[in-house]
Amino acid sequence: MSAMPRCNEKRLEEKITAFSRFGATGQGGITRLALSEADVAARNEFCARCRKLGLSITMDDMGNIYATLQGSGDGPAIYSGSHIDSVKQGGNYDGVLGVLAALEAAESIVERGIPLRHSYTIVIWTNEEGARFPPAIMSSGVITGRFQREEAIRTTDSEGVTFEQALAASGYLGEAANRLDPDDCLALVELHIEQGPVLEAEKTDIGVVAGVVGMLNHTFRLVGQAGHAGTTPMKYRRDALFAACKVIELLHEQLDRLDGELVYTTGQMKVEPNIHTIIPAMAAFSLDARHRNPEVIAQVKEVIAALPKTLVGCELSVSSNWERDTTVFDPRLTAVIRGACERLAYSHKEMYSGPGHDAQYMATAVPTAMIFVPSEGGHSHTEIEHTSLAACAKGVDVLLNTILTLDQQGL
Amino acid sequence: MSAMPRCNEKRLEEKITAFSRFGATGQGGITRLALSEADVAARNEFCARCRKLGLSITMDDMGNIYATLQGSGDGPAIYSGSHIDSVKQGGNYDGVLGVLAALEAAESIVERGIPLRHSYTIVIWTNEEGARFPPAIMSSGVITGRFQREEAIRTTDSEGVTFEQALAASGYLGEAANRLDPDDCLALVELHIEQGPVLEAEKTDIGVVAGVVGMLNHTFRLVGQAGHAGTTPMKYRRDALFAACKVIELLHEQLDRLDGELVYTTGQMKVEPNIHTIIPAMAAFSLDARHRNPEVIAQVKEVIAALPKTLVGCELSVSSNWERDTTVFDPRLTAVIRGACERLAYSHKEMYSGPGHDAQYMATAVPTAMIFVPSEGGHSHTEIEHTSLAACAKGVDVLLNTILTLDQQGL
Repeated sequence: MSAMPRCNEKRLEEKITAFSRFGATGQGGITRLALSEADVAARNEFCARCRKLGLSITMDDMGNIYATLQGSGDGPAIYSGSHIDSVKQGGNYDGVLGVLAALEAAESIVERGIPLRHSYTIVIWTNEEGARFPPAIMSSGVITGRFQREEAIRTTDSEGVTFEQALAASGYLGEAANRLDPDDCLALVELHIEQGPVLEAEKTDIGVVAGVVGMLNHTFRLVGQAGHAGTTPMKYRRDALFAACKVIELLHEQLDRLDGELVYTTGQMKVEPNIHTIIPAMAAFSLDARHRNPEVIAQVKEVIAALPKTLVGCELSVSSNWERDTTVFDPRLTAVIRGACERLAYSHKEMYSGPGHDAQYMATAVPTAMIFVPSEGGHSHTEIEHTSLAACAKGVDVLLNTILTLDQQGL
Repeated sequence: MSAMPRCNEKRLEEKITAFSRFGATGQGGITRLALSEADVAARNEFCARCRKLGLSITMDDMGNIYATLQGSGDGPAIYSGSHIDSVKQGGNYDGVLGVLAALEAAESIVERGIPLRHSYTIVIWTNEEGARFPPAIMSSGVITGRFQREEAIRTTDSEGVTFEQALAASGYLGEAANRLDPDDCLALVELHIEQGPVLEAEKTDIGVVAGVVGMLNHTFRLVGQAGHAGTTPMKYRRDALFAACKVIELLHEQLDRLDGELVYTTGQMKVEPNIHTIIPAMAAFSLDARHRNPEVIAQVKEVIAALPKTLVGCELSVSSNWERDTTVFDPRLTAVIRGACERLAYSHKEMYSGPGHDAQYMATAVPTAMIFVPSEGGHSHTEIEHTSLAACAKGVDVLLNTILTLDQQGL
């Protein structure tokens, strides 16, 4: 393959603008919860555009949509896509850009009359955000056996509507037989915004995503004794917030000695009774720690286990909320993506994803990798989420060339 | 005066039990907001008991109730009392014990036929807690000129009812001419629970309260930058909660070097966005610091002013919410209270009050002091607030003997 076709930037722009209307908040972002009216409207628009382009559409029993451009051969298909649901007051890029990129790649192929041997299937995964129906990454999780369908579809939203009811009402309930068949999948590539500041800070066009980092999420709870601010001498105090501050300082001191790529966050803090005239009786905070190497996560646990059990008279207890092992994407596939970047002369960087994605569960079933484009200011899950059109287009170019290389050379 | 009369413990117990019913939550405490149905019922019961005892009742234009046992002379009256309103889910002692102690003292005097030269007036101050109608300590504040009546009565509760409307509806709106007249007041003694752990911890019967400590209340605000927990490398982070922890540690380090009687509390903490996967963009906490010596409060301010303006990339700003100067009670009156303790052989300790009380504003107008009884566990403003009957009775004994000494010897 000598050509290095690129996508149509104007056409991509029109897509991004058009899909930003579904669930628009009027403040620059969208609220497009899974299987909501806005989500269904966006699905309808996607399907209409795919049909116009000559793609055939099927749905599976989780409402995942597969839009296929038929190849000339009978080998396995190449898949690309992401999700189009959003969090409440989310942005116009998280998820949907991966779907629109896959669609723009299809249009580029069709417009140029590039013959494909393998079929090319664009996929929309239902309910990646889990903002209306927990858990997140639900439907790729179900088809890869991570979650049980029977349990997942019984999840209710805040108004008591089940996922099952919402799916039936949406018109996107299909057959289990239409689920992505791993035996019929050459590779799956998901394009997504980085949702972090690294690519922008390092002035890099493309993140070649080699995996999703493992993580732990723990709650630290300090229990002291309430008392009146005006009457309790300092020597009698057991101030749970002060103790929590000491634990946070200790965590920083000790976790900073571990591998430099470890990230950890104490993002949530709850104080009781949280009244300015009462000594805090309880303070609880979250620790989120992520690293691609499970040994580093194990070291984090050692640091936690070695913390003092009592600080300034308060008792510390730590409980684990969840853990996730590192997902490693297919190195043959990341090599193809890297090759595409190089041919296009786009700067690139191998990196791991911090957030989870549909690709993370799909990687357990089929050769999978991801392409990241920069997030301005690292913002995501907010209305100000933004990636320049030029940066999005570079991502689509890499996706397009990855598809064409896979089609020509296999994996 | 050779006799050392004591109160009737059984009769005091009956009073405490009876008044615990007004606004009872069913969980051991009361919700008796100012001028609520429960408050009015308790006022009615108080007035009925006073009238039965031969006391004459007047109300002033803030709903303060004065129940007077007429003396034989025409000198100034001796006053004692407190408030009967409570916070939401408060206890059975804060405030009301001071009123019931004053009533039990009156009953002891009447029962024993002790002749009084000075009139003795029991007072109920309206809306000390400010839980329904801010500010706290409203009505003693109005009659001593701390607050303007016109402004205070326009305050609304959460349902839009004004203090003025609630007062009119209560039936306890009286004449401005009935306000306590400083020229007709020999002394005012308020009995109250300590609301702190000192008396209990030091196994002391009585706190002879020499004043109310000065205080400051500041808000510390740290502004950093939000970012995704999984994608923002540690070196790019500006974590506002981490910065807040460092400020709290610095405050402890430096304030602990000041006078040992200084108490300071960081009781309230707010984090934004307070999500476990987002680096905190903002953290704000309160500092409440109290000391009887204004020079120590000035030193606290110096410590605050000398704090670094930037910590771990976050900006610190500090704003003052309010300050209160130290109130010093009348040393002649605390000497009378101390004398009563000694004659009764009750252990006692001179102390300052941390919380504010009606006595604090009254002290600007008339000779004032307070008697504290222990609070079990230091608990107050909670349903588990408790003081043993024996401890309450000792407080009433001291109050009774203080009244009799004042009546005999003046101030």
